Amino acid sequence: MPLWGGAFSEPTDDDLRALNDSIGFDQRMYAEDIAGSVAYARAIAQAGIITGDEAERIIAGLLLVLQEFEAGVFTLQPGDEDIHTAVERRLTELVGAAGGKLHTGRSRNDQVATDFRLWVLAAIRDMQAQLIDLQRALLEQAQQHVHTIMPGYTHLQPAQPITAAHWLMSFFWMLARDVERLDDCHRRTATCPLGSGALAGTPFPVDRAMLAEELGFADYTPNSLDGVSDRDFAAEFLFALALANTHLSRLAEDIVLYSNPLFGYITLNDRYSTGSSLMPQKRNADPMELARGKAGRLIGNLTGLLASLKGLPSTYNKDIQEDKEAVFDSFDTLTRLLPVVTAIIQTLHLNPEKMRAALTEDLLATDLADYLVKKGLPFRQAHHVVGEVVRLAARENTAMSHINLDTLRSLSDLFAEDVAAVFDFEQSVARRAAPGGTAPEAVSQQIQQAEAWLNGRITP
Amino acid sequence: MPLWGGAFSEPTDDDLRALNDSIGFDQRMYAEDIAGSVAYARAIAQAGIITGDEAERIIAGLLLVLQEFEAGVFTLQPGDEDIHTAVERRLTELVGAAGGKLHTGRSRNDQVATDFRLWVLAAIRDMQAQLIDLQRALLEQAQQHVHTIMPGYTHLQPAQPITAAHWLMSFFWMLARDVERLDDCHRRTATCPLGSGALAGTPFPVDRAMLAEELGFADYTPNSLDGVSDRDFAAEFLFALALANTHLSRLAEDIVLYSNPLFGYITLNDRYSTGSSLMPQKRNADPMELARGKAGRLIGNLTGLLASLKGLPSTYNKDIQEDKEAVFDSFDTLTRLLPVVTAIIQTLHLNPEKMRAALTEDLLATDLADYLVKKGLPFRQAHHVVGEVVRLAARENTAMSHINLDTLRSLSDLFAEDVAAVFDFEQSVARRAAPGGTAPEAVSQQIQQAEAWLNGRITP
Amino acid sequence: MPLWGGAFSEPTDDDLRALNDSIGFDQRMYAEDIAGSVAYARAIAQAGIITGDEAERIIAGLLLVLQEFEAGVFTLQPGDEDIHTAVERRLTELVGAAGGKLHTGRSRNDQVATDFRLWVLAAIRDMQAQLIDLQRALLEQAQQHVHTIMPGYTHLQPAQPITAAHWLMSFFWMLARDVERLDDCHRRTATCPLGSGALAGTPFPVDRAMLAEELGFADYTPNSLDGVSDRDFAAEFLFALALANTHLSRLAEDIVLYSNPLFGYITLNDRYSTGSSLMPQKRNADPMELARGKAGRLIGNLTGLLASLKGLPSTYNKDIQEDKEAVFDSFDTLTRLLPVVTAIIQTLHLNPEKMRAALTEDLLATDLADYLVKKGLPFRQAHHVVGEVVRLAARENTAMSHINLDTLRSLSDLFAEDVAAVFDFEQSVARRAAPGGTAPEAVSQQIQQAEAWLNGRITP
Amino acid sequence: MPLWGGAFSEPTDDDLRALNDSIGFDQRMYAEDIAGSVAYARAIAQAGIITGDEAERIIAGLLLVLQEFEAGVFTLQPGDEDIHTAVERRLTELVGAAGGKLHTGRSRNDQVATDFRLWVLAAIRDMQAQLIDLQRALLEQAQQHVHTIMPGYTHLQPAQPITAAHWLMSFFWMLARDVERLDDCHRRTATCPLGSGALAGTPFPVDRAMLAEELGFADYTPNSLDGVSDRDFAAEFLFALALANTHLSRLAEDIVLYSNPLFGYITLNDRYSTGSSLMPQKRNADPMELARGKAGRLIGNLTGLLASLKGLPSTYNKDIQEDKEAVFDSFDTLTRLLPVVTAIIQTLHLNPEKMRAALTEDLLATDLADYLVKKGLPFRQAHHVVGEVVRLAARENTAMSHINLDTLRSLSDLFAEDVAAVFDFEQSVARRAAPGGTAPEAVSQQIQQAEAWLNGRITP
Repeated sequence: MPLWGGAFSEPTDDDLRALNDSIGFDQRMYAEDIAGSVAYARAIAQAGIITGDEAERIIAGLLLVLQEFEAGVFTLQPGDEDIHTAVERRLTELVGAAGGKLHTGRSRNDQVATDFRLWVLAAIRDMQAQLIDLQRALLEQAQQHVHTIMPGYTHLQPAQPITAAHWLMSFFWMLARDVERLDDCHRRTATCPLGSGALAGTPFPVDRAMLAEELGFADYTPNSLDGVSDRDFAAEFLFALALANTHLSRLAEDIVLYSNPLFGYITLNDRYSTGSSLMPQKRNADPMELARGKAGRLIGNLTGLLASLKGLPSTYNKDIQEDKEAVFDSFDTLTRLLPVVTAIIQTLHLNPEKMRAALTEDLLATDLADYLVKKGLPFRQAHHVVGEVVRLAARENTAMSHINLDTLRSLSDLFAEDVAAVFDFEQSVARRAAPGGTAPEAVSQQIQQAEAWLNGRITP
Repeated sequence: MPLWGGAFSEPTDDDLRALNDSIGFDQRMYAEDIAGSVAYARAIAQAGIITGDEAERIIAGLLLVLQEFEAGVFTLQPGDEDIHTAVERRLTELVGAAGGKLHTGRSRNDQVATDFRLWVLAAIRDMQAQLIDLQRALLEQAQQHVHTIMPGYTHLQPAQPITAAHWLMSFFWMLARDVERLDDCHRRTATCPLGSGALAGTPFPVDRAMLAEELGFADYTPNSLDGVSDRDFAAEFLFALALANTHLSRLAEDIVLYSNPLFGYITLNDRYSTGSSLMPQKRNADPMELARGKAGRLIGNLTGLLASLKGLPSTYNKDIQEDKEAVFDSFDTLTRLLPVVTAIIQTLHLNPEKMRAALTEDLLATDLADYLVKKGLPFRQAHHVVGEVVRLAARENTAMSHINLDTLRSLSDLFAEDVAAVFDFEQSVARRAAPGGTAPEAVSQQIQQAEAWLNGRITP
Repeated sequence: MPLWGGAFSEPTDDDLRALNDSIGFDQRMYAEDIAGSVAYARAIAQAGIITGDEAERIIAGLLLVLQEFEAGVFTLQPGDEDIHTAVERRLTELVGAAGGKLHTGRSRNDQVATDFRLWVLAAIRDMQAQLIDLQRALLEQAQQHVHTIMPGYTHLQPAQPITAAHWLMSFFWMLARDVERLDDCHRRTATCPLGSGALAGTPFPVDRAMLAEELGFADYTPNSLDGVSDRDFAAEFLFALALANTHLSRLAEDIVLYSNPLFGYITLNDRYSTGSSLMPQKRNADPMELARGKAGRLIGNLTGLLASLKGLPSTYNKDIQEDKEAVFDSFDTLTRLLPVVTAIIQTLHLNPEKMRAALTEDLLATDLADYLVKKGLPFRQAHHVVGEVVRLAARENTAMSHINLDTLRSLSDLFAEDVAAVFDFEQSVARRAAPGGTAPEAVSQQIQQAEAWLNGRITP
Repeated sequence: MPLWGGAFSEPTDDDLRALNDSIGFDQRMYAEDIAGSVAYARAIAQAGIITGDEAERIIAGLLLVLQEFEAGVFTLQPGDEDIHTAVERRLTELVGAAGGKLHTGRSRNDQVATDFRLWVLAAIRDMQAQLIDLQRALLEQAQQHVHTIMPGYTHLQPAQPITAAHWLMSFFWMLARDVERLDDCHRRTATCPLGSGALAGTPFPVDRAMLAEELGFADYTPNSLDGVSDRDFAAEFLFALALANTHLSRLAEDIVLYSNPLFGYITLNDRYSTGSSLMPQKRNADPMELARGKAGRLIGNLTGLLASLKGLPSTYNKDIQEDKEAVFDSFDTLTRLLPVVTAIIQTLHLNPEKMRAALTEDLLATDLADYLVKKGLPFRQAHHVVGEVVRLAARENTAMSHINLDTLRSLSDLFAEDVAAVFDFEQSVARRAAPGGTAPEAVSQQIQQAEAWLNGRITP
């Protein structure tokens, strides 16, 4: 019999139970549910609703239930429709009627909101730690490749030479934003709805500030109607994860591309690539493809929850139960994904000679224009002149550096002997030394900045 | 050891396995996988790749594997990364090296595409049957309420009186479109990719037409590159289910509203409503709220797959593996939901007296305008005159029918004694007798049309 | 003053007008609105609601309004909140009070549903024609490249050699499904809601069958409540376009990749690539990147409409007005995109020598396994043996074909002199001659099948 | 001729231009583009790339261009493909060749990222101001209704009595989170990418810190590759707006419901409701339905951008251009919506007598259970006893307060004379006085808290 059966003349239909019950997925919140109940037992004892002795027995019982869960010996019963019911049912078996007092002034509406926020708060810290692991892996790889030069692309067309460290670090900062976004989400999640009752608040003099503090929240919710139905924190968590996965999908795209043999810039460790059931030679970057593909899934989870929340009337509606599976799935997906991506970066083998082989003089066209600019030509004209040089080289099927000076001077008399020095990839890269640029010097500073960022995270 | 390990010098990382393996969710396609392999064994025997005797042993082995799955005694081994590997591994245990011949000319790429299409083909028929069950329930309720009059709403504001049967039948036709949309999806799914190999087709003279026919497909795929990576059928199935759930969400919204006591138009059976852990009097339409909320989830599943497919390079990429969990989840969600919704409609109690009590004369304002139109006033002017009647009644806090004729005639001299007859809800409804209208006469025809539609579905 | 102001004591707020009015985007349906009104005028004349003379004047007036729109001289007035109001307002100016009779028994609810369906019906045919243009371009390119061999990829790793025609044709069939999906959408859109009134049907004896036929619909809607609020056709159209754009995004990804100089398989015509404001040498496949990116946008339009429809109560609600901008945007986006993509394919220059240069023996590993299979080795073992050959070649940094026979025989004594014949890309491709395979022979058949498909579309 | 045409031998195709050009929507960033260029002119002057005199002429020219835009007299030319090109073209017309120097070391990649961030930074503040206006309107209404009692719902079923102020304030806090979320988004947007060049950084000694400060950014981006392609701020802005609109959709749902005459709790001002073209009595909450429906649209915009970004290779790709229309559309949609919603709340008429009439004793069932709890019965048992009371009252078709004491005592002997005092709505509400509860006392505190929050925003 469910907790709420008193006024009903017929038992609930089995199909409805299968549809309605959330125990299948919400039991993973058992620790949070029990923590919430322990705090609540203290609060209602302090408020004089139960005696100190009852509170002690209830709390001891709850800790026994916790042990059963931790030990994997908790047995679900047919009527356990959700984690709250299951815990209370077992508690009552263990401590008798006192267990039935625990729900005084509390509703599953404020209880589940509290449990779920506690779960998300921990999940945020977990996710941040995983993201930071990947950031460290990127940073360590970058430290090895401050002087490794590779083609940089825009529109996937060769653009300008860059350093491999600079490429790796670009993902470091994306993830840094993800980590910080999760901080903000944590701050907004850390508000305790317990004491909101079903919707209207509690008629018992429960000390909500103490409840919040004991459970590790920063504050309590200011409006009970909003308190029981606010799932902004879940949507925000889903958004932060979807965007993080979108970043991973971009890293994935690069890794898939760069491990194609025509690029050959990187080689994945055998432990982190897979083969084909038909084609014996294949070495696929499967996990990175999954990292790319699962971004779609996480976008879908976010979309789904927002659509579920859209247009709901005030306070709690059952639709809100859709919050948990989406959040669990996005979290679990990244939790399976991130350690693999991190290991791939840690064990990634870069092939500087392949990168070097792909450097073509086209990548120095901007440098050639800058050369003319430094001689006094307005950039727009310099760009145009170099466009003609590029065309000329293409038409004659030669490199720009092989065009003789007279021909160049027919396009602009600013060209001089020193133009030869332009065709040097190291110099090109070194020139971009302004902060945030690809020059080894600037990248070394960037790496220090990243280390400082990481150090600043030690005590979040 | 996976099927593809030959060229690898290091074992796959465990985390990668946990991420990569699909056996956790694709084992539910065991029957389809085995059916595909049985047909393939015949095809390669016919093509002379294996002997008739080998084919017989392979098929007998496959049927044993099938029995193990059906009996729930199939045991997964650590290396079983997906259903194809698991079945082939077990087959080889049972029949020896001949099992290793089955994969000749076949790849997991065409194999999984075949399995999944077979699964979706069956799922479509299953889903259609469930939708039709709900249609029947709506039809049967409608038959009881051809003459029951209730307020019809637009913008959730009282608009015109309608019959309850008409309201119920409106959902019948939404679902009819869903069923038909699934027919189209079935047609496009029924194309067999087996024989596409990994991507380039098979070098063995396999009779693809025979293969397709034996597996119950209508045709085979015309291009192997497309054949291994086409997941349109999955996206289309997800769309059809998302739209069907959107229809259910609209039915849900009405049922939630109409079971609010201020409306009170319907009462849900105790077996299909739920209570509150805090508030003893509550009788919530939880399952309908879930029907509404889960539309978000199914929209998310659709969005997610489309986003996963977006921007993939040609042929098979691992991202495509995201197809199955989304499809399974949408199908399972509706499969849990539909029987409950159907039972709710079957056991729904309509309260005609509450509907009647909610009929106010406002609902007849259009009829009053039509009255003037029939007397010769252009509709636009009639609308304006009645607008003034409505304001007058509101200002004097009376019903339109209580305004005396002189006052009415001061607004339009077309009003006459016979205006009294306008204020009759039965007449109002009966007048809307054009096909598709709410009149009992028209609704009876509509019900017959619906029965014909259902009868036409008997042999799909 | 709006059409509905009679009962209101205060004018509408200007901000609300700016929010509420749809004339900004629905005026593009002027032709459909007028066509619907012309048909409706005939229908109510036939039903005796207006005289034949009035009908003639109304129709003549409507045709004048049409001419004003066509000539670009129609002037919107402040009160024209939507296209229906604007047309009726102008009609009444032109023909006097008779214009006010046109709305008899009709509501903007059934009127807008009719207009919008008419618009979508035409848009479907337009979209199909554009898709078919692109199919023709693919087919024509394919015809030139039946014998051009290029690397085929799975997971973007070299897999097996394929013909370029086969690659091009793979997109032909994706688009064929799009065209056929639009046929189904057309069929479901071609149901006329006119005569549904605001929600309850019409009290006037309008011949709905005649109305439907005159407007080119196949049938009329069976339930008026559903008739005024069914937007399935819009969602289905958005889905079909989103999936078509997803196909374009995959073509785009290939083209972006293959026009990267490391691949160099294709060169875009100068007219269809763009440059950089900074880097003079750049030649970007911008339009294909847009084709890829806009798939996201179209997925968003679909998601948005489904979410807007989710959870609405029965019949018309203002939320439904969100249907049009999404549909117009998806249609316009593809209408801008498709001609460019088609032109790109038409003018695409393939570089067979670059494709050839990228063919490596790895791509023949499956052929080598098949060689062993034909000598009697079970495929699974053959796959394993070849895996070792691949590793050996990699370890010794040589091509498989350079490994001497004795070494090969140490791995399997089935290797013989004739193994040399395996290392031939033409032969590899030619072997995959089963239907749907990449062999020139099979591709030629595929092209014929495609031509037959196109011919079958001539009279849709 | 575009800025980049030098290396091209053929002009761009017109269809491609129509597809590619962004001037149609990005010209609204003219002020940001010019501000960025003014700052950049100063920076490159300081760096010695142009002379102080050139800088002055360029800046004067830019301010002239700004005036032309502000005065609406700027004329687009055929080659103006985007706002950057248009401004530079006009600048060069005004100041001659010096204008061509402005692009030195700058790319449209860092330029557009800078412009767009500046635009979003302003849009965030604008949006916050609009949200705060709505919060004030809610607060002011709440202040009028601290003692107004209405039914509170969960699952849209009567649950417990609440105060109307509490209901209104619940939306205040949703919007407060939206405002704070936008603060976080602002912080992350306020990082200046200028100086990132096309991708690799700038080779000129531009002072990025000074540039950032002059433009009002808090910092500059640490990695140029990320700097030119980071659109997290756009996605985060779209998310914040989508969630804000989801909140509005919930307010909308309540307002639509409560303005249905069966509820009748509120009346919308005539200025903010609309009528029907067919039904003269209608008074629809159209704008609130749009507020609800447009949440779908904003969810779609968010989904679309995330899907567009998914899987892109590093740095700038043309797909990223999809960022702006989505952001503009979400912003414009809310900017049209919010003033109307605010005005609706400001002019909302609450009908306390209708609320009071809807208060039924069912709403006090929890209070009755609490009564037993206070007498010592464990809550779980009390809940069960009251369930039986509820059933009894329903069976006998009476109110709970009319059941005589003896009957009650047959269910629990804890019932006594003082039970009569339970059936008092004022008392029920007053009891829920813990912080965040619905009691007038607690709501007054809540209102003070809200005022403090608003005051804390004065100098954001």
